[in-house]
Amino acid sequence: MEELAKVAGVSVSTVSRALAGNPLINAKTRARIVDLAAKHNYQINENARNFRLQKTNVIAVVLMLDVKSEQHTSDMFFLEMLGAIADALSVQNYDLLLANSPMTNVLDIHNSRIFRQSDGIVFIGQGNQHKQLNEFSDLDKPMVVWGSNLPDRRYCTVGADNVVGGYLATKHLLNLGRKHIVFMGDINMPEPKQRFEGYLKALKEKGVKFDKRLQIDVPFEMSHASEAINDLLQQKISFDGAVCCSDLIALSAIAALTESGLRVPEDVAVVGYDDIALAGYSSPSLTTVRQNIVQGGRILVQKLMAQINGDTVTDSVLKTELIVRRSSGAW
Amino acid sequence: MEELAKVAGVSVSTVSRALAGNPLINAKTRARIVDLAAKHNYQINENARNFRLQKTNVIAVVLMLDVKSEQHTSDMFFLEMLGAIADALSVQNYDLLLANSPMTNVLDIHNSRIFRQSDGIVFIGQGNQHKQLNEFSDLDKPMVVWGSNLPDRRYCTVGADNVVGGYLATKHLLNLGRKHIVFMGDINMPEPKQRFEGYLKALKEKGVKFDKRLQIDVPFEMSHASEAINDLLQQKISFDGAVCCSDLIALSAIAALTESGLRVPEDVAVVGYDDIALAGYSSPSLTTVRQNIVQGGRILVQKLMAQINGDTVTDSVLKTELIVRRSSGAW
Repeated sequence: MEELAKVAGVSVSTVSRALAGNPLINAKTRARIVDLAAKHNYQINENARNFRLQKTNVIAVVLMLDVKSEQHTSDMFFLEMLGAIADALSVQNYDLLLANSPMTNVLDIHNSRIFRQSDGIVFIGQGNQHKQLNEFSDLDKPMVVWGSNLPDRRYCTVGADNVVGGYLATKHLLNLGRKHIVFMGDINMPEPKQRFEGYLKALKEKGVKFDKRLQIDVPFEMSHASEAINDLLQQKISFDGAVCCSDLIALSAIAALTESGLRVPEDVAVVGYDDIALAGYSSPSLTTVRQNIVQGGRILVQKLMAQINGDTVTDSVLKTELIVRRSSGAW
Repeated sequence: MEELAKVAGVSVSTVSRALAGNPLINAKTRARIVDLAAKHNYQINENARNFRLQKTNVIAVVLMLDVKSEQHTSDMFFLEMLGAIADALSVQNYDLLLANSPMTNVLDIHNSRIFRQSDGIVFIGQGNQHKQLNEFSDLDKPMVVWGSNLPDRRYCTVGADNVVGGYLATKHLLNLGRKHIVFMGDINMPEPKQRFEGYLKALKEKGVKFDKRLQIDVPFEMSHASEAINDLLQQKISFDGAVCCSDLIALSAIAALTESGLRVPEDVAVVGYDDIALAGYSSPSLTTVRQNIVQGGRILVQKLMAQINGDTVTDSVLKTELIVRRSSGAW
C-alpha cells in the first residue's frame, strides 16, 4: 500500500480509504487509485484488513417502531428507508443487520449482537426514546439517527425539516380557502410535534384560531386514523381539511371519508406526509410533504461511514417540499 | 430443564423447543410450558444455550435482484417480502442479516459472513441461478428459496402457483372479450416462464392463436415496460389486453398507455402480478394476481426454523388468487 501511495502521490491512509470506497475521498481520486491498484496488480486482503481494523463490514439498522400502536416492519416509510439504506450500503460492500423490532429500550442493544457484530448503528426514528438514545451515544459506538434535531441531543441526526413541512402543508390548505383543518399525528413524538408547530405557525399567520378538538393523536400506521375520522364525524365536529403526519394516515383518512359519503378533495382536502411510492398512484393522488427517502438513506450511510473512519460529523436537515397532486383540490 | 419436563409431562426437547419459541410445538403447549417455567422461576441462559447449539440467532436474507436490469433493493415486492420475513423473525427473537445485493453468484456466499454468521439463509427469488442454488444446497446449510418448484431442485421452495396465476389473469381478460393479449415478463426466468405456460393454456382453451410478437421479455422493475409498450405502439402492433409479471410492470405499462392517449381499461385492459400494497390504491386500481406476501414470509421462516431444528421439510405452493379491480374493465 505504501508503494501505491508513492505512485499515486497521496498518503497511505488516502489509498486505504480510497480502496475501501470511503466517500470522504472524492470520486475522481478514488477512481484514479483503484485504476493504479489494478494496474500494479495490488490485491486487497479484505479479511486481514478487517481483522486489523476490527471491522465487521456490517451496519445494524434499528427500526424504532411504535410498540403501543403495533406498527409493523411492513410500514411503507420504514421499508422504503430500509431499501434506500441497503442500496447505499451495497455500494460500500457492507451488509445490513436488521434488529428484531419493536425495541422497547435501545439501551438493551449494548449487550446484544447488534452492538458486537456491527461497525455502527442506524436508528430509523426516535420513537419516544430520545433520552435513551442520548445515553446510548455515551457508549461511543458510531451511530446516526433519522429524526428531528432535538435541542439537547448528543447524537448525530439526519432528518427533514419538520416545522417547515407542517407549515407548508397547512398554508397550502389555508390558501385554498380551507378554515377547519384537522391535524392528525401524535404530538408526543418528536417529529409530529415539530410538524404541529409548523401547523400552528401557518394558522397564526392567516389569523385562523386553533380549535383544539381538531388535533388528534394518531400513530403513524393505518388502522387508527379511520377510527379518528369516524369519531369526528359522529361528534358532528365539522372540518374541511386534514394535515396528516404520514401518507398511510392520509390514505386511511381518505378511505374513512369516502365510506361516509364525503368527497376528497371537494368536501375535505387532504395532505399526507413522506411521499412514499404509492402517494403518486393513489386515487385521488396524494398531495404530500416529500421527505427525500433515497437521499436520506444515502446521507445516513455517509454520516455513519465517516464516524467509523474516525471523523466527526454534523447533523443534516434535508429540505422538505410540498408535492401538489389531486387530494388537496388545487387543480 | 429436566425437572420442568417432568412437571409438564413432556420430553426435555419439547421443553427446550417450547422455550425457544419453536413453531413445531403447538401454541397451547408452548404457552403451558412458558407458564410453568415462569412459575418455577426457570431462567433461560440464552447465550449459554446458543453457544452449546452453536446458534447465532441470525437469519440471512439474500435478495436475488437482477444484475442486468439494475433492479434495486427498493423494489416494492422485495421490500414487502423482506418486511414480512422481518416481522415473522421478530416473533422468534431472531435478527435478520441482509446481504448486500445484487449477488452475481450465490456460491460466493460460502466464504462470507452471510454464511458464517447466520443459522440459515432465505433466498428471495431464484434469478437465473437455479444451478448455483442446487450446488449451494449441497453445503448443508439450512436454506429456503422463494420461487418456483423447478423439477430438478435439491432445495426447499416456497412460492405461489405461477402456472395458475398466469392462467387466471389471461382467462379473466379472454372472458371479458379481449383477444390480443400482450404477455410482459422475461420467460428466461423461472417464475415468468411458468406464468407464461398458464397464459398459453388459457389461450388454447379459448381457441385463441398465440401471436409471438405479443410476448415481451421485460425485467420485473419499472423502467423497461414503458419502452416496450411504446415499441409495440410504434410498430402498430395492436393489442387490447396485457398480462404483466409484476405490479410495477403493470403500473409502468399503464403510464405509457395513458401518455399515448389510450385509456385503461377501455382500450387496453391490464392485469398485474403480486398485489403489492399500492395495487389497491393506484388509479385505476389494479386487477392483479395476489401472492400472499405476509403468509409467504411466515412460511419461509417456519420452513427454515424447522431445518435449523433438524427436521426435514417439504415445499409449499401457495394458492394464487385473482383480485379484480378497475384496470381490467370487469366493472
